Amino acid sequence: MNKKIINVAIVGVTGYGGLELLRLLHNHPTVHVVSIHNTSNDSEDISVSYPHLQSMYKITPTPFDPLHIMQSTDLVFFATSSGVSKDLVQLFIEANFPVIDLSGDFRLNAPDYEIWYKKTPASQSLLDQANYSLADFYQNDSHYIANPGCYATATLLALAPLAQQQLLDQENIVIDAKSGLSGAGKSLNLSSHFINVNENFSMYKPNHHQHIPEITQQLKHWQATIDHIQFTTSLLPINRGIFVSAYVKLTKQLSADTLQKIFEDTYKNKPFVRVMPKDQLPDIKQVVGTNFADIGLTYNPNTKYLTIVSVIDNMIKGAAGQAIQNMNHLFNLDETTGLQLIAQYA
Amino acid sequence: MNKKIINVAIVGVTGYGGLELLRLLHNHPTVHVVSIHNTSNDSEDISVSYPHLQSMYKITPTPFDPLHIMQSTDLVFFATSSGVSKDLVQLFIEANFPVIDLSGDFRLNAPDYEIWYKKTPASQSLLDQANYSLADFYQNDSHYIANPGCYATATLLALAPLAQQQLLDQENIVIDAKSGLSGAGKSLNLSSHFINVNENFSMYKPNHHQHIPEITQQLKHWQATIDHIQFTTSLLPINRGIFVSAYVKLTKQLSADTLQKIFEDTYKNKPFVRVMPKDQLPDIKQVVGTNFADIGLTYNPNTKYLTIVSVIDNMIKGAAGQAIQNMNHLFNLDETTGLQLIAQYA
Amino acid sequence: MNKKIINVAIVGVTGYGGLELLRLLHNHPTVHVVSIHNTSNDSEDISVSYPHLQSMYKITPTPFDPLHIMQSTDLVFFATSSGVSKDLVQLFIEANFPVIDLSGDFRLNAPDYEIWYKKTPASQSLLDQANYSLADFYQNDSHYIANPGCYATATLLALAPLAQQQLLDQENIVIDAKSGLSGAGKSLNLSSHFINVNENFSMYKPNHHQHIPEITQQLKHWQATIDHIQFTTSLLPINRGIFVSAYVKLTKQLSADTLQKIFEDTYKNKPFVRVMPKDQLPDIKQVVGTNFADIGLTYNPNTKYLTIVSVIDNMIKGAAGQAIQNMNHLFNLDETTGLQLIAQYA
Amino acid sequence: MNKKIINVAIVGVTGYGGLELLRLLHNHPTVHVVSIHNTSNDSEDISVSYPHLQSMYKITPTPFDPLHIMQSTDLVFFATSSGVSKDLVQLFIEANFPVIDLSGDFRLNAPDYEIWYKKTPASQSLLDQANYSLADFYQNDSHYIANPGCYATATLLALAPLAQQQLLDQENIVIDAKSGLSGAGKSLNLSSHFINVNENFSMYKPNHHQHIPEITQQLKHWQATIDHIQFTTSLLPINRGIFVSAYVKLTKQLSADTLQKIFEDTYKNKPFVRVMPKDQLPDIKQVVGTNFADIGLTYNPNTKYLTIVSVIDNMIKGAAGQAIQNMNHLFNLDETTGLQLIAQYA
Repeated sequence: MNKKIINVAIVGVTGYGGLELLRLLHNHPTVHVVSIHNTSNDSEDISVSYPHLQSMYKITPTPFDPLHIMQSTDLVFFATSSGVSKDLVQLFIEANFPVIDLSGDFRLNAPDYEIWYKKTPASQSLLDQANYSLADFYQNDSHYIANPGCYATATLLALAPLAQQQLLDQENIVIDAKSGLSGAGKSLNLSSHFINVNENFSMYKPNHHQHIPEITQQLKHWQATIDHIQFTTSLLPINRGIFVSAYVKLTKQLSADTLQKIFEDTYKNKPFVRVMPKDQLPDIKQVVGTNFADIGLTYNPNTKYLTIVSVIDNMIKGAAGQAIQNMNHLFNLDETTGLQLIAQYA
Repeated sequence: MNKKIINVAIVGVTGYGGLELLRLLHNHPTVHVVSIHNTSNDSEDISVSYPHLQSMYKITPTPFDPLHIMQSTDLVFFATSSGVSKDLVQLFIEANFPVIDLSGDFRLNAPDYEIWYKKTPASQSLLDQANYSLADFYQNDSHYIANPGCYATATLLALAPLAQQQLLDQENIVIDAKSGLSGAGKSLNLSSHFINVNENFSMYKPNHHQHIPEITQQLKHWQATIDHIQFTTSLLPINRGIFVSAYVKLTKQLSADTLQKIFEDTYKNKPFVRVMPKDQLPDIKQVVGTNFADIGLTYNPNTKYLTIVSVIDNMIKGAAGQAIQNMNHLFNLDETTGLQLIAQYA
Repeated sequence: MNKKIINVAIVGVTGYGGLELLRLLHNHPTVHVVSIHNTSNDSEDISVSYPHLQSMYKITPTPFDPLHIMQSTDLVFFATSSGVSKDLVQLFIEANFPVIDLSGDFRLNAPDYEIWYKKTPASQSLLDQANYSLADFYQNDSHYIANPGCYATATLLALAPLAQQQLLDQENIVIDAKSGLSGAGKSLNLSSHFINVNENFSMYKPNHHQHIPEITQQLKHWQATIDHIQFTTSLLPINRGIFVSAYVKLTKQLSADTLQKIFEDTYKNKPFVRVMPKDQLPDIKQVVGTNFADIGLTYNPNTKYLTIVSVIDNMIKGAAGQAIQNMNHLFNLDETTGLQLIAQYA
Repeated sequence: MNKKIINVAIVGVTGYGGLELLRLLHNHPTVHVVSIHNTSNDSEDISVSYPHLQSMYKITPTPFDPLHIMQSTDLVFFATSSGVSKDLVQLFIEANFPVIDLSGDFRLNAPDYEIWYKKTPASQSLLDQANYSLADFYQNDSHYIANPGCYATATLLALAPLAQQQLLDQENIVIDAKSGLSGAGKSLNLSSHFINVNENFSMYKPNHHQHIPEITQQLKHWQATIDHIQFTTSLLPINRGIFVSAYVKLTKQLSADTLQKIFEDTYKNKPFVRVMPKDQLPDIKQVVGTNFADIGLTYNPNTKYLTIVSVIDNMIKGAAGQAIQNMNHLFNLDETTGLQLIAQYA
C-alpha cells in the first residue's frame, strides 16, 4: 500500500456532494485536503458558513486556478452542478492531471449529453479522454474519471451480473427507482419544500431522468443488445438512500439457485457489494452511512420476472464514497481505504 | 335520495379500520351508529380507550349478538382482522341481512383463501353468497359485500380501463405497490417499530401479498386471459397512502392520446376516480384524507411500456371510505353521501 | 339555529390558511363560498392550480372589489399574509361589514404592531374598531374580528383559567412552544427545505415571535399585572400541530386537585376545549384534523411549577377552524356548526 | 500518546447502545474488540443477526465470564439495560478492573437508585467505588466509570458554566428536554409504534425521568444549593438527537456578553463542546453523527430568563461516544481518538 500523502483540491464544495467529500476525506488516512474552491468566490471560512464543520475543518475557499491546483495537489475533485466542470477542466485534461468529476458532464458522448442535459456539451475530443468508472468494476485507463450518477450506480450494480452474462431480455427491463431528497440538491423549489415532501411520495421524470443514457451505455458495453430501459424515478420522504426495484426477464431459463450464484460469483471479490442470502431483500437502513451496495433477488416462476432490489446511500456509494473509492484505485491504494463505514442502524 | 336514517353496527371497532369507520360515519347525514362490538369484550366507553374521540362519541362496546344486531340495525360492518368474520356471519347470510365486510374473509373462493391466508376458509356455499364489490364499479346483487383490499383497490382502478378493453398483455403486468404504515395495522412488531420504519424503505411480501388473488380474480373477470401478475409490496415511512406504479404492455398499439381517452371515458361518470391530464402523475398528498383515487399515465414508445400511477388513502378509499361508498349504493343513496372530503394539503 | 345561507368571500386563497378555509367551508351546512380573490390577480380555476381540489371546487379568483363583495356576500375572510389586509379593509370597516381577518394586522394597537411586525400599521381608529376574538371566549361587539394567531391560541387557552383567577405569578411564566411546518407558510427558504427540517428540531425567534404581544395583551386583559412572558418558538419536523409546554408558578398555593377543577370549570361549557384527566397530558395526534384544543396539567410540589400542555392543529384551531367558529358566533349559529371533526388517529 | 492496543469486551451488544459501541470502536485506531457477550446467550454471528454489520464484523457472542474477560481484555463495556450490570460487576470491582458502564446502575447512591429506578440497587460499598464521569469534565479516580445518561449529559453541559460559578437560581431552573426515539430503546410497545410517533410529539415522564437525580446530584456537586430542577422529557419523531431548552434565572445580574464569555471560557479547552456565537442557537442536525455538544444562549432582559439550548446525538455524546471518550481518558489517550466525526448534514 502506498503510504504517500495524496494532496487534493475540491471544486464546488458547498453542494451536498462537496460537503460529503469533505466529511469522508477527513477520515482518510492518506489524504490531505489542500484547497477548496467555489464558483461563487466565497471567501468565508467553511466552518462559518457551515457550523457543523466547526473544530473539524478550518479552510477558506480560494479562487479557482487550474495551474495553482496542478502545482499544489495530486488530484482535483469536481463536485459541481451539471454544466460547470465541462468549462473548467480543459487544462487538467491536456496536462493529463488526475480529475474525479462527480457531475454528469463527462459521462456521455456529446450528442447524448446535449439531448439529456439540454446544455452544450464539452467537445467530443475532451469527452473521449474521460473514463466512466463504476468503482466496483474499476478498469480505468484515464486520469479523468467520470464518477457515475447515484441512480445509475444502484441500477448498474443490480443488473451487471446478468448483463455480463448476456442474460437480460431487452424488452423486459423495468426499473422503479426511488431516492431520498439529498439527491435533489440544495436548491429551493416547490418540490423540496418540507410540506410537499413530508408524508408524500411522487414519481418525477418518468422516462427522462438524465441517468438513463449512462445506464444504457454501460449495459450495452456489457451486453451489446441492450439499448433502452423502462426507467422511472420517484421521491422518498427521507434524507438519504436509493432503493431500486428492478423487474427483469431473462434470455435463458435459470433456476433461482443458479441466479443467486451468478450474483454471488460476480461480487465475491468486490468488498463494497454485499449480496443477501437467497430471497432476502435489503432495506435502505442497512447501507445509509456506508459505501456498501446491498443486493437481493427473488424469482417468480409464474410471471418469469426476476425481482432485484439494490440499495445504496446516494451521497456515499452514489457520489462521494464512490469518488473516493475510484481515487483509491487511481493511486493504487486498497479500495476500502478511508471507507470502512458501518451503517448508523438506530 | 332516500332520507331514512340507516342504523348501523360495527364489529371490530378498535383496529384502524373500525376507528376510521367511526370517524367517517360521524359526518354521514343519514347514518346512526347504534352499537359497536369488540371480539375482546371491552366494556369501556370508546372515548376512554381513545381520547381523541372525546366529545364526539359516547358509546360503549356491547357483546356480539347477531340476533340483536339484526333487530336493531339495518346493516353491520365487520372491521375485523382476517380469519374472524368468517366464523361470525352465518346468521346474517342466512337472513340475507346487509353486511359490509372490510376483511378478506369473503373476497376469494375457498381454495384460494386457504392458500393465500393460510387459514380455514368459510364454506364455499357461504362464500358464494358474498359479492366482491369495487364501489366504483358497483354491480351488486348480494347483501353481503366483501369490501376489496387497499392495494387491490388502487391496482384494479389503475388497470380496469385496459382490462375492460382486453388490452392487457398477460406477460407484461408489473406492479410495484407501496403503502404507508397504517395498512399494516396496530400490532407491535419489529416492522412497525419507529426506528425500523423511519428514514427507511423496504420491500416485503414480494410475490405473495394476500391481495394478489383478488386482483387476479377481478382482472380475469374483465379480461379472461389474465391469471397472474408480477406484484410486490413495499413499506413507505408515512402514516397513510398507497402509491401503485404499474408498468404494462398492451395487446394493441395505441397512441398516448387514445390511451388517455380510454381512461377518461371509463371514469367520466365515476365521481371518486379522477384522471389527471395527459402525462401528469398524481402524488399521495392529493388524496390523503379523501375517498378519491387519482390516476395518471404516461407512455414510453421506446420501451412500449405504459406507466400508470394510482394513488389512494389506504384507510379511506382502501377501506372505510369504500365501505361507506358501497353502503350508499346498497341503500340507493348518492354514492358521494358523507364522503365529500377534501385533501388536507398542508 | 339560523338556517339562512351565509354567502362568503375569501381574500388570499392560495396560502395554506385560505386553502384550509376552502376545505373546511365545503362541509359547513349553511355557508356558500361565492367568490375568491387573490392579490396576484390569478385567473385560473382554483382546481387547476391545486389538483387536490378537483371535483370539489370549481371557482376562479376574481379581482378584489370591496363594493362588489359587500353586495354579493354576508362576510369576507382575509387569509392574507401580514401587512396586506390593513390596506384593503377600510371600506368594510366604514360600512360595518362583517370581516374575519386571519392575519395579525388588526390584533394589536398601532405602536405594538409597528414594533413587532416592522411594518406600518393601520390607523389606530381603524384598529379600534376591530375585536381580538378567541372564539372559545367569544365576547364580540364588533363586525371586524381579528382572528388570533396559532401559537397565541394554544398559549392563551393554556393560561386562561389561571389568568382569569389572578393566579399567574408574573415573574414565572415560561412558554416553550413548538409547531409543525405549515405554520411557517409556503415560501421557499432554507428553513423550509426538507433536508433542513427532516430529522431536525430547532428554536427560532426566541423572545421575538410576533405572537408575544397579542398573548401578553390578552393575559393583561384578564390579569392586569401581566405584561411580559418568557416565550420561545421551535420547529417540529411534522406538517401540522402546535405543542405548548407552559411552566408557571402561581400567586397562591393550591392543590393539584383544585387546579384541575379550575381548568375543568373554565372549560366545561366550551365544546372545543377538552381538559384531560388529572396528570394526563395530551399529544398532537389527538387534535390534528380537528378544531379541538386539548389541555393537560401536572403539578410538581418540589419545584412549585405547574406544567400545562396545550395542543392544537395550527391550521384549524389555530387559524381557519377558529375563524369559522368565530363566524358561527357572529351569525348566531351553534359554534360547532361545520366543525364536527374527529382526529385522523392513524 | 499511548500506542498500545486496548483489548475490550462488550456486554449487552444487541441494544442500540451496544451496536453503536461496535460501530464507533471499529474506527478507533488502538482498540480491538476481543469478545462480545449477551445476557440472552445468543450464539449466532453478530452479522447474521444484524445484516448491516456484514463484511465489517465477524464475531459471535460468547457466554459472560468475568474471569475470562479480565484475562483477555483491558476493559469491559456494559451496554446493558438498567438493573443488569449491578448483578454482574462485583468481580470486576473487587479486582479494580476497568469498567465503563453505559447503564444507570452505578450513577446514584443506593436510596436514590431504589426510588427512581424502582429496583434493588447494588450495595452502597460497590456504588462508592464507581465514578460518575462526564467525559468533558473528566476527573476520574476510579476504574469503574458510570457513563452519564443522555438527557443528563446535554443538561449538565448546558448548566455547568453557571453552576460552577454559583450562578443558578435554585427556584428558577426549567428544563424542557426532547429526544428522538433511539433513546427509548428497541422494545416493542405502543409508544414506539410508528403510527403513534410519526407526525406526533408528546411529553412523557414529566417530573419523574430517571435522569433527574443524576443531574441534581452533579449540579449540587458544583453548586451546593441546588437540589431540585423542573425537568420534563418529550418525544421527537426523529431517530436521533436530544434538544434541551433550559430556562434559568441567575443569582447575579450579568450582561449577555459576560454570560457568553463564561460559557466560552468554560469550554475553550474542551474539544467536544462547541459554544455558538452570541445569540446563535444550534439545531440537532449540527451534531447528529458526532460526539459534539453544541450550546447556544440568549438572554431576555424583560423576563430575566437566560435561555440555553444544548444539542447532542443521544447515541454518541449521550452514550457510546462519551463512553469511548471516557475510555480515552482512562488510558491516557488524546480524548478525541477515534471520535473525529463530522455531522452527516444532508
